[in-house]
Amino acid sequence: MQPSRAQRISAACGDVDAVVISNGTSPFLDMMFWYVTEQTSGTFEGSFAIISKDGSLDVVTGPLEETTARTGLGNIHIYEKRDDRDRTFSDILNGCGRIGICGRSTTYSVSEYIKKITNADLVDVSAKIAEVTMIKDDKEVAEIREACAVSSKIATDIPNMLRIGITEKEMAWLIESGMRENGGSGNAFDTISAFGENSAEPHYRPADRKLRKGDTALFDFGSKYGMYCSDLTRTVFFGEPDGILRRAYDVVLRAKNAGMEKMFGGSPAKDADLAARAVIDGSEFKGRFIHSFGHGVGMNIHESPSIFPGSEDTLKEGMVVTAEPGIYLPGIGGIRIEDTILIKKNGAEPLTEFDEGFTVI
Amino acid sequence: MQPSRAQRISAACGDVDAVVISNGTSPFLDMMFWYVTEQTSGTFEGSFAIISKDGSLDVVTGPLEETTARTGLGNIHIYEKRDDRDRTFSDILNGCGRIGICGRSTTYSVSEYIKKITNADLVDVSAKIAEVTMIKDDKEVAEIREACAVSSKIATDIPNMLRIGITEKEMAWLIESGMRENGGSGNAFDTISAFGENSAEPHYRPADRKLRKGDTALFDFGSKYGMYCSDLTRTVFFGEPDGILRRAYDVVLRAKNAGMEKMFGGSPAKDADLAARAVIDGSEFKGRFIHSFGHGVGMNIHESPSIFPGSEDTLKEGMVVTAEPGIYLPGIGGIRIEDTILIKKNGAEPLTEFDEGFTVI
Repeated sequence: MQPSRAQRISAACGDVDAVVISNGTSPFLDMMFWYVTEQTSGTFEGSFAIISKDGSLDVVTGPLEETTARTGLGNIHIYEKRDDRDRTFSDILNGCGRIGICGRSTTYSVSEYIKKITNADLVDVSAKIAEVTMIKDDKEVAEIREACAVSSKIATDIPNMLRIGITEKEMAWLIESGMRENGGSGNAFDTISAFGENSAEPHYRPADRKLRKGDTALFDFGSKYGMYCSDLTRTVFFGEPDGILRRAYDVVLRAKNAGMEKMFGGSPAKDADLAARAVIDGSEFKGRFIHSFGHGVGMNIHESPSIFPGSEDTLKEGMVVTAEPGIYLPGIGGIRIEDTILIKKNGAEPLTEFDEGFTVI
Repeated sequence: MQPSRAQRISAACGDVDAVVISNGTSPFLDMMFWYVTEQTSGTFEGSFAIISKDGSLDVVTGPLEETTARTGLGNIHIYEKRDDRDRTFSDILNGCGRIGICGRSTTYSVSEYIKKITNADLVDVSAKIAEVTMIKDDKEVAEIREACAVSSKIATDIPNMLRIGITEKEMAWLIESGMRENGGSGNAFDTISAFGENSAEPHYRPADRKLRKGDTALFDFGSKYGMYCSDLTRTVFFGEPDGILRRAYDVVLRAKNAGMEKMFGGSPAKDADLAARAVIDGSEFKGRFIHSFGHGVGMNIHESPSIFPGSEDTLKEGMVVTAEPGIYLPGIGGIRIEDTILIKKNGAEPLTEFDEGFTVI
């Protein structure tokens, strides 16, 4: 039998006596809780999943979540009041001197609580856990594929949605409602819908800017499917743009392809970034690629590995990551082209699909 | 001139040399960052807002957020690489021996980073900051009012949306799309849409259960407007329900009214919970109110104060909180009625509004 997710994490974290996965108050919820319990529902604020050294799993939660908790994995402990919770928590962790926590997704307050209740030393095992969770299993890849299919359908429809005078917010809503109506379970992140000069701001929030002839129109969005995310960016042009934007588009597309050539099992993650960056920095747009080439995608929209020049991660078969170079020209516009990618032994399989050619509507 | 938000926080935190508000990776973002900078946009992952003892505000962020950062308050410091960030951060906090952090909304990893860079002692000032942020200023109340108006309109429309065979998921989507089409900026939280026996689970996630004659139909949802949340729950009946549900509805409504009588400036928060709980526990439904009476609402859907039997908070004029008693009968159904409430000097002003009478469709 294949080891459970909890067993794999326990093995990866080696020298700790237990691993505690904690949820604070929403949105400070750790998707690792859903990962190890294989839950697909619930909020589980103030709940804990505890992985013992033998890989067994205990879940401590309140009566609000009891019904849901029993649909997932683990030995379920329901507490009525805070002192019950403290006692249960302390009993399960009795004798543990070193407790691993997910430092990136556990709040400081909760970490202090764990210290107080257990008197144990805390060890941040985020990176060790990520070594396990970065590799998606078949069930996870299947959900991400569905999420990507929903987003791709909408990306393909974008040219039909654009019309003169439509606002960025209206386009964001058409995209988001389209994703839901095509089977998505919600937005993986806040949709970016940016026209003209606004597209030069990579993390722009859509406003009431109306679409005009000659505008760049950049859309960065992703549907969830079940618990999993997808992420893509399509940039199109509403009427023939300024020549500089056509040239930038061509460079971004070449950069993306150059990066993707470096995406295969065993390749250092930074190589994809450096290859894409070399294309952009070797063009008239030197220095205009102002973010990372990519990031892992799973239940979180941003997770390990990181694909940037300083990354020490290695791409491995079964990782799902983005490839998303861009060029940003303040006052003029920005171009970004992004796919969600499955890393295979010998290459990169795009899970998102839309026409990446230069498109004038 | 009124003191700025940063100045008020600095004053409330008294004995620390600075307060650092930090964002991790999404969703581990601290809405306090948007509160003090008065930003209404951006993601600001890995960014810091630093409040000095004199109430001045410094913002440390990356090039991705530069344009957005400059639309908000504070002295903006843009870093290019991680070591620039470390240097800027360390310079601003030079000489600070005790640094306040928001422990409930700062990750353990970031807290370790702050310790490493500054060598300072960290003090969790979450509770002191909450003393300031619990009281909403006029600008905040105005946005929450708008958010509540959007949600109320949809709550009022619910009877027109229900039809035999519609699924929980379809109803959730009608509600969510209705909120967006009526001016909302997104969901304040995942919509709960639960039919029949599923409504007995307070944190239920909508599924494909179809609406049948005699079902309870419970909807807990809220729109955002700008950066602010609203929260309401309406429970209606699709055809005449089992008599026990009619009785439970009556008890919940009486419990809500009893709780609201205790909601005014200066009243201990727990009094509202205890008054509502007394009504339910004095009925045939003793022990069936299995969650808190209410919670604060602001940029976060769950914030201070907490309204539960053990609460040590005091309600104050300008707080915005929920009033949401419920009765849950496993296998049969659940009832919850919830408003978002503004605490005034002498009473509770509901900001949400819909027909709370027993409604059979």
